Amino acid sequence: MKPVVVRNIERTDAETVRSLGACGVSTVHEAHGRLGLMKPYMRPVWRRAHAAGTAVTVLAHPGDNWMIHVAIEQCRPGDLLVVGVTADNEDGMFGDLLATSLRARGGVGLVIDAGVRDVATLEDMGFPVWSRAISAKGTVKATPGSVNIPIVCAGAIVNPGDAVIADDDGVVVVPRLDAADVAEMARTRVDAEDAKRAQLAAGTLGLDLYGMREALAKAGLVYVDTLEEAGRIAKK
Amino acid sequence: MKPVVVRNIERTDAETVRSLGACGVSTVHEAHGRLGLMKPYMRPVWRRAHAAGTAVTVLAHPGDNWMIHVAIEQCRPGDLLVVGVTADNEDGMFGDLLATSLRARGGVGLVIDAGVRDVATLEDMGFPVWSRAISAKGTVKATPGSVNIPIVCAGAIVNPGDAVIADDDGVVVVPRLDAADVAEMARTRVDAEDAKRAQLAAGTLGLDLYGMREALAKAGLVYVDTLEEAGRIAKK
Amino acid sequence: MKPVVVRNIERTDAETVRSLGACGVSTVHEAHGRLGLMKPYMRPVWRRAHAAGTAVTVLAHPGDNWMIHVAIEQCRPGDLLVVGVTADNEDGMFGDLLATSLRARGGVGLVIDAGVRDVATLEDMGFPVWSRAISAKGTVKATPGSVNIPIVCAGAIVNPGDAVIADDDGVVVVPRLDAADVAEMARTRVDAEDAKRAQLAAGTLGLDLYGMREALAKAGLVYVDTLEEAGRIAKK
Amino acid sequence: MKPVVVRNIERTDAETVRSLGACGVSTVHEAHGRLGLMKPYMRPVWRRAHAAGTAVTVLAHPGDNWMIHVAIEQCRPGDLLVVGVTADNEDGMFGDLLATSLRARGGVGLVIDAGVRDVATLEDMGFPVWSRAISAKGTVKATPGSVNIPIVCAGAIVNPGDAVIADDDGVVVVPRLDAADVAEMARTRVDAEDAKRAQLAAGTLGLDLYGMREALAKAGLVYVDTLEEAGRIAKK
Amino acid sequence: MKPVVVRNIERTDAETVRSLGACGVSTVHEAHGRLGLMKPYMRPVWRRAHAAGTAVTVLAHPGDNWMIHVAIEQCRPGDLLVVGVTADNEDGMFGDLLATSLRARGGVGLVIDAGVRDVATLEDMGFPVWSRAISAKGTVKATPGSVNIPIVCAGAIVNPGDAVIADDDGVVVVPRLDAADVAEMARTRVDAEDAKRAQLAAGTLGLDLYGMREALAKAGLVYVDTLEEAGRIAKK
Amino acid sequence: MKPVVVRNIERTDAETVRSLGACGVSTVHEAHGRLGLMKPYMRPVWRRAHAAGTAVTVLAHPGDNWMIHVAIEQCRPGDLLVVGVTADNEDGMFGDLLATSLRARGGVGLVIDAGVRDVATLEDMGFPVWSRAISAKGTVKATPGSVNIPIVCAGAIVNPGDAVIADDDGVVVVPRLDAADVAEMARTRVDAEDAKRAQLAAGTLGLDLYGMREALAKAGLVYVDTLEEAGRIAKK
Repeated sequence: MKPVVVRNIERTDAETVRSLGACGVSTVHEAHGRLGLMKPYMRPVWRRAHAAGTAVTVLAHPGDNWMIHVAIEQCRPGDLLVVGVTADNEDGMFGDLLATSLRARGGVGLVIDAGVRDVATLEDMGFPVWSRAISAKGTVKATPGSVNIPIVCAGAIVNPGDAVIADDDGVVVVPRLDAADVAEMARTRVDAEDAKRAQLAAGTLGLDLYGMREALAKAGLVYVDTLEEAGRIAKK
Repeated sequence: MKPVVVRNIERTDAETVRSLGACGVSTVHEAHGRLGLMKPYMRPVWRRAHAAGTAVTVLAHPGDNWMIHVAIEQCRPGDLLVVGVTADNEDGMFGDLLATSLRARGGVGLVIDAGVRDVATLEDMGFPVWSRAISAKGTVKATPGSVNIPIVCAGAIVNPGDAVIADDDGVVVVPRLDAADVAEMARTRVDAEDAKRAQLAAGTLGLDLYGMREALAKAGLVYVDTLEEAGRIAKK
Repeated sequence: MKPVVVRNIERTDAETVRSLGACGVSTVHEAHGRLGLMKPYMRPVWRRAHAAGTAVTVLAHPGDNWMIHVAIEQCRPGDLLVVGVTADNEDGMFGDLLATSLRARGGVGLVIDAGVRDVATLEDMGFPVWSRAISAKGTVKATPGSVNIPIVCAGAIVNPGDAVIADDDGVVVVPRLDAADVAEMARTRVDAEDAKRAQLAAGTLGLDLYGMREALAKAGLVYVDTLEEAGRIAKK
Repeated sequence: MKPVVVRNIERTDAETVRSLGACGVSTVHEAHGRLGLMKPYMRPVWRRAHAAGTAVTVLAHPGDNWMIHVAIEQCRPGDLLVVGVTADNEDGMFGDLLATSLRARGGVGLVIDAGVRDVATLEDMGFPVWSRAISAKGTVKATPGSVNIPIVCAGAIVNPGDAVIADDDGVVVVPRLDAADVAEMARTRVDAEDAKRAQLAAGTLGLDLYGMREALAKAGLVYVDTLEEAGRIAKK
Repeated sequence: MKPVVVRNIERTDAETVRSLGACGVSTVHEAHGRLGLMKPYMRPVWRRAHAAGTAVTVLAHPGDNWMIHVAIEQCRPGDLLVVGVTADNEDGMFGDLLATSLRARGGVGLVIDAGVRDVATLEDMGFPVWSRAISAKGTVKATPGSVNIPIVCAGAIVNPGDAVIADDDGVVVVPRLDAADVAEMARTRVDAEDAKRAQLAAGTLGLDLYGMREALAKAGLVYVDTLEEAGRIAKK
Repeated sequence: MKPVVVRNIERTDAETVRSLGACGVSTVHEAHGRLGLMKPYMRPVWRRAHAAGTAVTVLAHPGDNWMIHVAIEQCRPGDLLVVGVTADNEDGMFGDLLATSLRARGGVGLVIDAGVRDVATLEDMGFPVWSRAISAKGTVKATPGSVNIPIVCAGAIVNPGDAVIADDDGVVVVPRLDAADVAEMARTRVDAEDAKRAQLAAGTLGLDLYGMREALAKAGLVYVDTLEEAGRIAKK
């Protein structure tokens, strides 16, 4: 495939993105049927960072950040830049200058399957970034990749315009066409969790709250008084 | 072996646990003959967390947190939940709802050889957790494991009722029957270290404080003025 | 080669070291032709640590911190201790007592290709440390290594007296004879980046600021309106 | 998204698959613009295995091989089973019984982003398998996934019916619609490489064969007689 | 705990060990309730190695193979040496000389959570070894550990005298008291698998052989004709 | 530092290299004071490969194999190409065409801190290669590096002209000026090991052969009859 920049993409609507962002990564991931989660090596470069935006995607080559410059031109307010790389790489492909530029275009954050640098400045700027590594290693501008094509980032498929939610728990991607439904289910989960939290705090056990005792017994779980008794049971 | 829950376990006494906790992981590990330390991938999910408790142990299957619900019922005030898994896994087996429930039973913390989520909330709650990963990945409730049997967690054997000490340096396990002796040795070390710290701060060298010079010479260490001289010595 | 301690080394001058430290790791690494960077697994044990000093080097054996005691005697004010190990190891070779001793000699920090412990105390002391791991694992004093010979630390060659700069972005080594030139180039870069930052913040694109459009077109990058159009182009 | 099995998929034609397989992974990857390659942790479980087939895709949950049974029913002669997992997992999801069943349906191989077992028997059967790990760890049959939806396997997007080529160099995926073009380009490359191999064997340097000398000089490469001379040049 | 050598241990009987060995690691692991498996990084240093023996256990310190010499004296014909280390280490703690000595005592193999060397010679000798790494790195003889105490090796608890089975699929440990029962269950599994293999080879699907269709439907699995239809279902 | 090619290097003499090669990696590493060993991730791409040569060194950038072409021109019969990379990278920088060219110049093998491809062909050619990965990932020719400067490869310093020995146990580097001495010591070790092997095979224990019993007792090792007795001793 030749390197291309796709200029026109359809984006998840802003209100849906905002709503998903308010629910947080873990809840959205559950509401989405436990799909779309990036691998856990993708971590925020500063604690308590959170972001929700529409994906502008970049496919870059290892150690080459040329396409990030190209992609920033394609960003609109509310977009979140998502960078996949054609081979594992931890070089520092993004720093405070690119963050300044991306923010000037309205970009709300970066998720990159490579390294970043200037992390202290990024934190001072309050610019949220998730990456697989922190590295000062400089990069080249030699090989064009593509912008706004479907990519893989940290094990997740990302299509341009998808909703991307990121916080301390990681990064989750919700396809544009599923986003409104997932947002609604996520809000329902948040309400349900608030109720459960109160009950659990009051001392109700999950075993009872979720009615697990019967299923556990059926699955063969046995209660014994001592480890020795357990040993005798194992023999039967 | 069949899945079992052992209800009655003998616990390290609370005062010994408190005393070990006050000495910190590194000192306790040394006092215990450099044994019982979990692997260094076991990290606190928020900085400056520390905990000391008696182990309630869980053997879970990868991606399945059913037994954590079962184990919480077995917890008493002062217990610390320790979760081992039958195969390497980083899924998010524990979050703020389980932490709320565990705390309601008097649980003082969690050590888990898998992932956890809701880490920002855990920090806000001040609930201390050590894990091998942070991951939003949801889990199933399909296969029973066991509670309060001997387990391996991050490379260390943990028996129910053992003292578990955890802080920024990692997690160490002290067998119940050794705990009082180790606590006493640990306190002795703390006192000795305070004295040494003052001497080192005043400029005394470790070489002299610990009397190492003779042993080093015997082991063949040679002092030279320049690297060239070192090269000549190497030839002899 | 026999174990040796080289007593006399030539050090990068203090003003050059200070100047490099003020520019930060990423800028110095770029100014140095993208050389001398340690691998990104080398991380500060507390956030916002930074240090710049002249290298006193240690070659130690895994799990053996004997030579750190030996090396501290060789340190002068402004030195930074750099420890390489003959095989991968994460044991806690350095803690608050050694930090107290090193600081008493004027040492400004530690970079170690192994583990460290007492990290909370190190942060309270404000003593900056970069390591590959945090581990309470105690070490032995059994096998002599060498002090002030050329070593490899986290993939970088370090010669005694080299300038070592470390911050949140990692650790970079600048050979003593190149340090003044690199410092000058680094300062020039800092000035240039300040100017660029202002332009990028004002909305100028990197594509225009760096004049990349022509080179990208020449390299074959094509702009299309839709993904379908991209597919058609790929076929040609 | 709910778990589904898609029964009807369009497959790359058999002759194109055969042709790609004859060219080998490295050549196909180059012909495809250096895209579609799985990460290098995906290795054959026995040396000299090679396979080329049309993808039947499986999205499974970690430690759960239920969907592989489901997928085998969907396989036709010439298909190659490709299994992605929703979270990193090394459990042994596939062994000689499943291989026997898959082969009985005409399946030509397996690529799985998890573990496999019975590897000695797989080699004796001559059944080619690429996996991220070898592990005897048994799995459960608890959570349905999906068959023949787009998946990510070892970092590569795989759509049902894509051509998948695997050998000692790894695994590459070619989208169905690109397969014929890529096969043609790959054959061209094979012919060109045969010619080059002869010239290189005869002593012609790549520098001359590919005409690199001018570009290298332009990029700043300098030839010197000694390392000392190199040091002097670096200073200029 | 002080370093000790326990001279008298009870061993699993030889016939049971032989019987377990004949069933292979994957089958024994299943028969043992999916417990006792070492982590998959534990690999044979040569293909097609297999061994079954009674564990003589060693707890060693990283980079120190002193205790292996001590342990060999405790070995009897049929014993298999199992070495755990107090911290992660890949140094070459065992080579052809130790293998010669261990074999002279009747030792049938080695499982070591560290590195080994002389691997070509080990293969020529036909001496089976499982390790986490291959490394020429030499070790010291400085710190005593223990022999024949309970240890952790590659994530599994090993007690002296346990049955240890190792082949191309990995290493599994069966506690002495469970070994006869597990051996019987393992043989039953082998017989059952032979029958299933024949049916699967004849084209019977696992779905039918294991009667999975109803459970899958109940768990929500849906069959559709096309991916588009799957999308419509997901919306419902 | 600017990119340079150093044309004239001094090489270890061929007879010394041959002699070192005959002793093997583990023995040479011991004879060299346990120094110069590359990390154990550096593995032969085919079993039973072995090579010994004089280093022609390459410093390349990640994903860029331009300098390998440049370096081949500098090779003479007996040289072994050693490639370091400025950041961790697993791309396939070397394949059968480059092997053909390198062999035509008299090159005896390749050691590369990156990936290689065409591994089946390399084995068929009998061309020995050690690498950190096998990967089909293609590379670019964009950024010049250097040839015949000191480099780091897999954690070891390699100077041009050093002796490099590689076999199934890994790769070791011996500085040119030390090579003759190390070769002599290595031959002495081989002779001594032959004598020891015979004694060990005859049943003599290492404990007696090396006279370890006294040192072990002095270090505190205690022999007991049972584990219970060990527990009582630990309490004293």
